[in-house]
Amino acid sequence: MTTNTNGKLVSGFSKMSKIDKLNWVAQQLTDSEGALEDLKDFWHPKEEIQKLLDEFSENTISNFAVPFGVAPNFIINGKPYVVPMVIEESSVIAAASNAAKFWSKYGGFKTEIISTIKSGNVHFMWDGPFEKLQAIQPELEELILDATAPITANMRARGGGITAIEILDHTQELKNYHKIRVEFETVDSMGANFINSCLEEIASILRDFIPQHPSFEGKEKEVKVIMSILSNYTPDCLVKASVSCQVSELAELDKDHSPEEFAWKFEQAVRIAQVDTYRATTHNKGIFNGIDAVAIATGNDFRAIEACGHTFASRNGKYTSLSDVSIENGVFTYWLTIPLAIGTVGGLTALHPLAKRSLELLGNPGAKELMQIVAAVGLANNFGALKSLVTKGIQIGHMKMHLMNILNQLEASETEKAEAVHYFTHHKVSFNSVSQFLQNLRNPS
Amino acid sequence: MTTNTNGKLVSGFSKMSKIDKLNWVAQQLTDSEGALEDLKDFWHPKEEIQKLLDEFSENTISNFAVPFGVAPNFIINGKPYVVPMVIEESSVIAAASNAAKFWSKYGGFKTEIISTIKSGNVHFMWDGPFEKLQAIQPELEELILDATAPITANMRARGGGITAIEILDHTQELKNYHKIRVEFETVDSMGANFINSCLEEIASILRDFIPQHPSFEGKEKEVKVIMSILSNYTPDCLVKASVSCQVSELAELDKDHSPEEFAWKFEQAVRIAQVDTYRATTHNKGIFNGIDAVAIATGNDFRAIEACGHTFASRNGKYTSLSDVSIENGVFTYWLTIPLAIGTVGGLTALHPLAKRSLELLGNPGAKELMQIVAAVGLANNFGALKSLVTKGIQIGHMKMHLMNILNQLEASETEKAEAVHYFTHHKVSFNSVSQFLQNLRNPS
Repeated sequence: MTTNTNGKLVSGFSKMSKIDKLNWVAQQLTDSEGALEDLKDFWHPKEEIQKLLDEFSENTISNFAVPFGVAPNFIINGKPYVVPMVIEESSVIAAASNAAKFWSKYGGFKTEIISTIKSGNVHFMWDGPFEKLQAIQPELEELILDATAPITANMRARGGGITAIEILDHTQELKNYHKIRVEFETVDSMGANFINSCLEEIASILRDFIPQHPSFEGKEKEVKVIMSILSNYTPDCLVKASVSCQVSELAELDKDHSPEEFAWKFEQAVRIAQVDTYRATTHNKGIFNGIDAVAIATGNDFRAIEACGHTFASRNGKYTSLSDVSIENGVFTYWLTIPLAIGTVGGLTALHPLAKRSLELLGNPGAKELMQIVAAVGLANNFGALKSLVTKGIQIGHMKMHLMNILNQLEASETEKAEAVHYFTHHKVSFNSVSQFLQNLRNPS
Repeated sequence: MTTNTNGKLVSGFSKMSKIDKLNWVAQQLTDSEGALEDLKDFWHPKEEIQKLLDEFSENTISNFAVPFGVAPNFIINGKPYVVPMVIEESSVIAAASNAAKFWSKYGGFKTEIISTIKSGNVHFMWDGPFEKLQAIQPELEELILDATAPITANMRARGGGITAIEILDHTQELKNYHKIRVEFETVDSMGANFINSCLEEIASILRDFIPQHPSFEGKEKEVKVIMSILSNYTPDCLVKASVSCQVSELAELDKDHSPEEFAWKFEQAVRIAQVDTYRATTHNKGIFNGIDAVAIATGNDFRAIEACGHTFASRNGKYTSLSDVSIENGVFTYWLTIPLAIGTVGGLTALHPLAKRSLELLGNPGAKELMQIVAAVGLANNFGALKSLVTKGIQIGHMKMHLMNILNQLEASETEKAEAVHYFTHHKVSFNSVSQFLQNLRNPS
């Protein structure tokens, strides 16, 4: 490898050994020895497992540790779950657990799979009358199903595969732009690699098919494939989770107001998230706090889930709340409808030792069951956030949770922590107030 | 604690010690001993650091390890960076590194901060003529600035604080709905706790102010605060990153086509993401692959970033691409404009040992500098994804990266891995093909 004079540019880095990479990175830091130790401390003690983790990605020198916790007492369709959650933010697991426990007394979460369609597209440029493309569609479709048969064989054996093929005309939006939209059923896998492999095969069929087909002439024989790729937007891979109880049963959630008043405020909070985008973003963020935590714990790709869910939230032209509420005849019903393209096989689900354990803890669910669990947790976190917001506000709870972080940052001893916890039961937590409290404790005047 | 008969429901769980929680969770699994070992293996060897990690969240029993790697050779505004990235998905760090290296030859990334405004709202219901609220705004504003002075003191000393207060009328959208919108400058912190603490104080001022003010009468004296909370949607906390070169300089990126043809295909790929929502979601997902990886590495909240960025992508009524491209007079220019409300102080930035090291590796940037680094990495990953998509497709690279995962899953030996890597340089990687290859290797016929 070579580095330039300031030492920050490097050639051949990816080819270096892990230990050389680590040393080079540590040399970039003032406290190289301390950095080396910090980075190595996070290595897994078993070499073969560390190697496995390293090979998930590239240029890896350590592992970033994110707290792995559990939210017990989730009842979903009558079945109890202990849900693994991986999240660095305080209050999220507490909120999910509290909501789960509350709803366990009122029938728990009811969930249903609405649809499980995934899709991908071969995006291509072609100049000619669309009717001519439509005319060859049946022929092309047969060719596609034949040519992808070896790729789809295993998936078909499990009940999945290609379920629809359609050529779409987008020339109104972009000159010559068309796509072959392909729909897939990927059963228990998220299916990204499977879908992309199929699409790249379909693209190569299209490239051969168009120029040689007798119905095309002149410029119609030219097809330019731009790209072939799955869509992370899966509005038809949809799950719904809901909870319901008598309004009067909400009484324990708000000691200061009647259950009717609590329900009314809760409803207003949801309505506000439906009409105000500034609120909707944060409202939905709270849903994804729970969703991502379970996604990461089970080895799923949270970026795909986020991109899809937020696009779905904007599907009607205005970004809005993903959850909804109704209060009718004294019954409070609250629900979340969200697209979730996730898997329980493939990817890291079986590879990451803790993803595997997470799935075991959930009873080794299939993808449909996991979709329902994840949706229930998203609803639980949304419920917990709104409950706090419309009653005592989130800062009391949140800053209490954050109190430990501040105490750690100020290097409080265990005795000091205990005194601080006691004191801040009745006082507002902020970095300043905690710092002041510790100073007073350490230097009593 | 008590558990019910099926053993999955539990009372008092959050009060249990960590070890009791761990044991209880392990008991839920068939292989309790193995699960205990797996979960404990991921503990940090230093007790005090593990305790620190545990206290970030609740009900924690282990740490979920996500690969921590680096992408060297980022040149941003002329300054070289080695960027820490935390991500479990293969190819993301490789794509960022390759894009960084390519652009380092053509001036690197140019970035600029467009704005740094954050905001939050006190959402309230009030029934009366809006002019009356507008009339008391100056008085209320003064009261707010006074009452929040102790909370904002430190932030003001650092150059931040409350920068604007406005009462808004939303009664057209929801009966009686108004809000006090407050704008903040939070300097180097993401500012969530600071903003929420201010807003809760403002809500309590509003609750006292309205009923006692002489200009209100009858029902106008009633104000119902629904909630007080920051907005994660920060369209005015905006950063732009761009790269530019002569079209002819793109030659090395596509051996099979002219640089003009490559540039044309690349441009079409961006245009498609601008007109087709199904593509836009995945296009932006690729941007967040890089953004989230740096966000996590530096202790920032990726869910807030995702919610904000995707809302921003839908701001004009249709969810669309966050990046854009132009090819003019033989010059290729490619850029990303994205809101990023992130921090380099507060939260976990200094608490998580590796977040701290990540920030050191980046030269301990302020929030504005980190916004620019993160945006550059987002653009780099987007560039890398499009480059692959419009040339050889992503499956070759992606499946090569995934080859190691598959080999590990099939428990391949180091010799088998070496043979597989050699073989799959020229063959298509899929779970089936690798499995077949290993079978042939193990049982030569």
